[in-house]
Amino acid sequence: MNAQKIYKAKIINDPIYGFIKIPSRFIYELIEHPVVQRLRRIKQLGLTYYVYPGATHTRFQHALGAVYLMDQAIHNLRLKKHDITDEEAEAVLAAILLHDVGHGPFSHALEESIIPQINHEDLSALLMQKLNTEYKGKLELALSIFNNRYSKKFLHQLVSSQLDMDRLDYLRRDSFFTGVTEGVIGSDRIIKMLDVVNDQLVIEAKGIYSIEKFLVARRLMYWQVYFHKTVIAAEFLLMKLLQRAKELIMNGISLYASPPLDFFLKNKISKSDMDARKDLIIENFVSLDDDDLMVSAKVWSKHNDVVLSLLSKNLINRILPKIRIQKKPFEKKVISQIRKNVIREYAWPEEYIHYIVYTEVISNKAYSQFDDKISILYNNGEIEDIAEASDIFNLNELYKTAKKYFLCYPKNCGV
Amino acid sequence: MNAQKIYKAKIINDPIYGFIKIPSRFIYELIEHPVVQRLRRIKQLGLTYYVYPGATHTRFQHALGAVYLMDQAIHNLRLKKHDITDEEAEAVLAAILLHDVGHGPFSHALEESIIPQINHEDLSALLMQKLNTEYKGKLELALSIFNNRYSKKFLHQLVSSQLDMDRLDYLRRDSFFTGVTEGVIGSDRIIKMLDVVNDQLVIEAKGIYSIEKFLVARRLMYWQVYFHKTVIAAEFLLMKLLQRAKELIMNGISLYASPPLDFFLKNKISKSDMDARKDLIIENFVSLDDDDLMVSAKVWSKHNDVVLSLLSKNLINRILPKIRIQKKPFEKKVISQIRKNVIREYAWPEEYIHYIVYTEVISNKAYSQFDDKISILYNNGEIEDIAEASDIFNLNELYKTAKKYFLCYPKNCGV
Amino acid sequence: MNAQKIYKAKIINDPIYGFIKIPSRFIYELIEHPVVQRLRRIKQLGLTYYVYPGATHTRFQHALGAVYLMDQAIHNLRLKKHDITDEEAEAVLAAILLHDVGHGPFSHALEESIIPQINHEDLSALLMQKLNTEYKGKLELALSIFNNRYSKKFLHQLVSSQLDMDRLDYLRRDSFFTGVTEGVIGSDRIIKMLDVVNDQLVIEAKGIYSIEKFLVARRLMYWQVYFHKTVIAAEFLLMKLLQRAKELIMNGISLYASPPLDFFLKNKISKSDMDARKDLIIENFVSLDDDDLMVSAKVWSKHNDVVLSLLSKNLINRILPKIRIQKKPFEKKVISQIRKNVIREYAWPEEYIHYIVYTEVISNKAYSQFDDKISILYNNGEIEDIAEASDIFNLNELYKTAKKYFLCYPKNCGV
Amino acid sequence: MNAQKIYKAKIINDPIYGFIKIPSRFIYELIEHPVVQRLRRIKQLGLTYYVYPGATHTRFQHALGAVYLMDQAIHNLRLKKHDITDEEAEAVLAAILLHDVGHGPFSHALEESIIPQINHEDLSALLMQKLNTEYKGKLELALSIFNNRYSKKFLHQLVSSQLDMDRLDYLRRDSFFTGVTEGVIGSDRIIKMLDVVNDQLVIEAKGIYSIEKFLVARRLMYWQVYFHKTVIAAEFLLMKLLQRAKELIMNGISLYASPPLDFFLKNKISKSDMDARKDLIIENFVSLDDDDLMVSAKVWSKHNDVVLSLLSKNLINRILPKIRIQKKPFEKKVISQIRKNVIREYAWPEEYIHYIVYTEVISNKAYSQFDDKISILYNNGEIEDIAEASDIFNLNELYKTAKKYFLCYPKNCGV
Repeated sequence: MNAQKIYKAKIINDPIYGFIKIPSRFIYELIEHPVVQRLRRIKQLGLTYYVYPGATHTRFQHALGAVYLMDQAIHNLRLKKHDITDEEAEAVLAAILLHDVGHGPFSHALEESIIPQINHEDLSALLMQKLNTEYKGKLELALSIFNNRYSKKFLHQLVSSQLDMDRLDYLRRDSFFTGVTEGVIGSDRIIKMLDVVNDQLVIEAKGIYSIEKFLVARRLMYWQVYFHKTVIAAEFLLMKLLQRAKELIMNGISLYASPPLDFFLKNKISKSDMDARKDLIIENFVSLDDDDLMVSAKVWSKHNDVVLSLLSKNLINRILPKIRIQKKPFEKKVISQIRKNVIREYAWPEEYIHYIVYTEVISNKAYSQFDDKISILYNNGEIEDIAEASDIFNLNELYKTAKKYFLCYPKNCGV
Repeated sequence: MNAQKIYKAKIINDPIYGFIKIPSRFIYELIEHPVVQRLRRIKQLGLTYYVYPGATHTRFQHALGAVYLMDQAIHNLRLKKHDITDEEAEAVLAAILLHDVGHGPFSHALEESIIPQINHEDLSALLMQKLNTEYKGKLELALSIFNNRYSKKFLHQLVSSQLDMDRLDYLRRDSFFTGVTEGVIGSDRIIKMLDVVNDQLVIEAKGIYSIEKFLVARRLMYWQVYFHKTVIAAEFLLMKLLQRAKELIMNGISLYASPPLDFFLKNKISKSDMDARKDLIIENFVSLDDDDLMVSAKVWSKHNDVVLSLLSKNLINRILPKIRIQKKPFEKKVISQIRKNVIREYAWPEEYIHYIVYTEVISNKAYSQFDDKISILYNNGEIEDIAEASDIFNLNELYKTAKKYFLCYPKNCGV
Repeated sequence: MNAQKIYKAKIINDPIYGFIKIPSRFIYELIEHPVVQRLRRIKQLGLTYYVYPGATHTRFQHALGAVYLMDQAIHNLRLKKHDITDEEAEAVLAAILLHDVGHGPFSHALEESIIPQINHEDLSALLMQKLNTEYKGKLELALSIFNNRYSKKFLHQLVSSQLDMDRLDYLRRDSFFTGVTEGVIGSDRIIKMLDVVNDQLVIEAKGIYSIEKFLVARRLMYWQVYFHKTVIAAEFLLMKLLQRAKELIMNGISLYASPPLDFFLKNKISKSDMDARKDLIIENFVSLDDDDLMVSAKVWSKHNDVVLSLLSKNLINRILPKIRIQKKPFEKKVISQIRKNVIREYAWPEEYIHYIVYTEVISNKAYSQFDDKISILYNNGEIEDIAEASDIFNLNELYKTAKKYFLCYPKNCGV
Repeated sequence: MNAQKIYKAKIINDPIYGFIKIPSRFIYELIEHPVVQRLRRIKQLGLTYYVYPGATHTRFQHALGAVYLMDQAIHNLRLKKHDITDEEAEAVLAAILLHDVGHGPFSHALEESIIPQINHEDLSALLMQKLNTEYKGKLELALSIFNNRYSKKFLHQLVSSQLDMDRLDYLRRDSFFTGVTEGVIGSDRIIKMLDVVNDQLVIEAKGIYSIEKFLVARRLMYWQVYFHKTVIAAEFLLMKLLQRAKELIMNGISLYASPPLDFFLKNKISKSDMDARKDLIIENFVSLDDDDLMVSAKVWSKHNDVVLSLLSKNLINRILPKIRIQKKPFEKKVISQIRKNVIREYAWPEEYIHYIVYTEVISNKAYSQFDDKISILYNNGEIEDIAEASDIFNLNELYKTAKKYFLCYPKNCGV
């Protein structure tokens, strides 16, 4: 191909933004790379489609959407006379495109059960590093922005902060595909209100009500979608299933699994492995997606291990446990009574009872949503945190970690 | 016409809800009545279209929309086994249809300047009374619900309370036509969450995030639309113009005005007149609409009174004063300095300076938005005010009256 | 004001396109001119809001929308390497902004009854001429494009042709505000498909299905909105009312009318007057809007002329005649029988019967919708008319003038 | 569970219709059945998401959507006084819910390559039969409607005809998720216009423009989505891949495949097998979904068969062949020249050339879209086919089968 050829912008249809124009040839090449294409096989919201059937959208769509918003944000900041060079623009676009490549399938369940020592941020950085080598250093600046080592800090904030393009896209996209229309946020307006002061992203004062609405919409999405109790129940089911599969394999029981899943079930991967066997781990990781888990579970549903087959059947056919939520831990005697009911009702082996009656805790902190600040810029040049600027919010509450306790058990066995 | 004839439901297209089905023949007859048809000539948001050009929607559309939502609410409450008879249903539909018939054109400006002693709620009740006579008592129950004299209090709350169908429609409609999409509220979901406990409207606990979002969206609409400073400036301009017109007439100056406007300019109407000359006042009131004011202002723009003609020209051609807002009263010396500037710059007669340089105060209390409570119903049957139920809101703040001071003056005369 | 000051683009909220950016200071100045501001008082669709209550949108909104689309079109054509200078861009934007300034209130009714010899295109040109003088020739190029005297013909086509920005905006806007969602057209996509070959606007071949859909959507809007029989009935009612008012005045009967309407009722204006008394005519014309007619009709509803007062009351209170449509003229004996019924039923004076029982003909030709061509551009560079390019359309039919005959009469007097 | 318990309607969020109410407990039980749940793992549009990334919606969502529309249609026809018993209503709802359960993954590719003798309609009927046995005959009436053996023919037409609920949902849904907004059809309005005359579905005359628009929107969806050339290219790629896999297995080459796919690759299934080994075939069929193919292709991408591994890599990483389309067959010498280029350029074995350079024909007839009639009902009771009723359509053309020839080959090898 002739690298000199003028780039004729590729246009991709998106149900949310209409036409997404891919800003440069290099960004388009990255999109075509197998590591990004793989995101087509990873649903953005894991098993959430068991509650909201429309939520089958993928991390690929989200990555494109975030690129689109980043392009808008760059355009807008340049209009406000902030200097962003063409190199910086391409780097920050590449960074947002690639920010999620380290996500595995059904991230939370998977991270908890089979690769507990590696998180997706590390993997994203690792994969970007690999791409950087492949593209002969063309991703150096993107990496530096991604890792917050670049001098212009506000570029990193566009990729990762309370008001980054990641969040603006996923809240809107998740709201769109779940059909929870109340979660819709005004990404257009928020981007128009962005400014930079002292190398820090801020929001113009007249955008304060939009930010209030953004915060409330986000909260609504948390409790109505991300922490919806039936979604949580489905994710726990998958987690328990993977734990059992891993346990069986550790005990030498033969078990079908598609090759990349097989690799992760058979190997305990520690932080130090990540260096020693990096290439092998990455090769398997980028081969692993949602499909491996579902196909394996279908096969397992006929396995002769009673735990594995029941959990698999339940996962495949969407037979979800009953789930209860409360703000404090469940009492031991309640759990114990339910366990007795299940053992009696289902003639269930007592040693496996923790696979189908269990309690867990979840906190919004895990999603690092409520951590840092949003700064408001007044006409007189002063800057104030939204917590101070808004008179209606009790932001101590808003920023506080909410912990919720869950108790799961088969239907008809409650107390 | 044959009253026995089966009613074939009339369908009206609405840009927001799609098809609105008029629920009964009687409601359709009321819609056809001149008193309701007049609402076609009264814009819902007065001069707001000077800032948001799309906001030319009328009180008529809003009345139909509120009927539609009421129909949904009745349907939903009946599904939850609350007893609403057919008579009650028709009465509460009639009440919401007619709740605004007492509105004059550009309500706030008009009420302040030419009929200061009569408010639109009284006029609505008066007109409903008149219709009740005309329809031989068929509106008895509607009136009793409207005036909160009926035994089932929740029916009144559907017409007038924090979550009445009036508010649900106007917030959504105003958001739609202004294009301030962030103000959109989920009326569908809120109506689905409505329930009745102890004869009181409540919201199911799982609707709490929708209510939070509703409160924030409403707040956003207040500051972004209803109290938008340019809208306020336009309304003050109109108010000053009407004051001047009234003053000239009181001083015996001859002045064109369309007949109904002429009536209100020439007569000071006190509360006691409302009884003595009720029929005459009503006859003129129902003839008065937005058009009378605009047509008269066009004529006045050529009048030889310098104040009247300037204010008229400014109104017609949308030449709006500069407006400043702050939370405390403006200092006398600031006002005085600006007045001096204007007198010098425009060679403006000093005795008329208060017509073009003035300060006013406005409070959201005036719109009685933040007064009463929204009750949340928990699964265990307990009820709690949203102020307690929501952990993020600082509702003392939310319910507090906000006062804002405005200072208006011609362009280029500031200090 | 300092003309050197950098222009900070004004943003206007639009319910359809979101944010409309006003492209230049001069365009913004034109928008602020009384001649354009007046369009705020002229509804885009006249009395259509009697059938579709949402259709209260104004010619002002439409003018802004057309500017927005023109800006998109210019941007797109420049991307395709067509040369459009900054002067041409501003001129074509000014031309589309001003293309409708010559519209009077309720255009069709008014043009038929009180200023039959002047059409709105002539008036638009006249007013643009006047503005050109006022702005010292700055509108020279805009005028030349508007009148199709400029060398680059495609610029004129953007203002006036089968696919001009006028049409793209009004179809979408009328569809939006009436709630006839099926009329929605994909203006975005059509603009993206625009190209220029041999100084002529064409559509890229892959846009052919969008054009088919545009043609069908337009047809749907015609029959479902523009020629909706109840809309036609309302417009005829207004036309008859104005005829009667004019007749009374010609007969020396004293009649209230707001000053600009009074002028047009009292003066028969011929083409030659247009030169002789141009300034006076224009002064009155730009003072005339929807409000004058409605306010006058309200007053007339109490006049002692039985025809004038009945027609006025009917107009104000939306009491519309029964209307029948057919493809051929109505038989004389049908009309005559209905007239007899009315005279008997309502004791209606025979000499005035033609005011309430009448037949008229209307043709879509009048709206000059189906006249010229849409050219399709193939990848190989060939150009073909859509009539040839589309295999499904019977375009002889599509382009053919459709004539429809209407018969109007009071309710309950049919045969 | 207590079957007597009152059914509290389940509500499911849908991004298109908002809230979908599941009309009865039995319908809800069917939805929970593994045979329906499996549709969650089959994308509605196969590989179309390779062109329109949003199109990851599943046949499950579509089935729910069709149930929703059917519920609307029943409601509407009952309002028009057509007799539909509760049993019939539930049966027709069940029929539409289950109408697609016989679909395999990537239907067209699969049907062409590995189960060429069985079509999805037969499989749907077979599976419904099986469910009927499981539910002890409760699906008898649904089956009879589905197979068009029931006396009221219009019920079958609601399930399968030019205007069935299947089509109304999928056109709207596919348009929504692809983001091809121009394909949107007015399902609401079309359903409102439905009527029954002589046991036949008809459309009221005033709906004629909606039908025209529906036909044009459908046509647009065909050429812009269903027959989009890149979509076709992806489907051919998958088809060739499956052919190769089957061939290798037939030749005794060992090949990984997930169990259900393994079954279909190893067995040639003829019509007669369908009886003899029905249970086994069904068991494997209902275990097979999109995931099996993608997981297997990932494994095959490392196989040592050069054809299998190349096609697999291309499929997984979205490296699609170049594709050309024309209305007549491609010339032999063109194909032969391209094949020579490929053999030379890629050192590709000549005997496998037909796997990467091939020509195919596709016809819209295959999708049986344009076959039967749409009847228009006039006010006078007459009925006419849309082909006659619409004056603009050249319906001979509209109904005609369009055949298109495709030629696929690797990039940079064209002539």
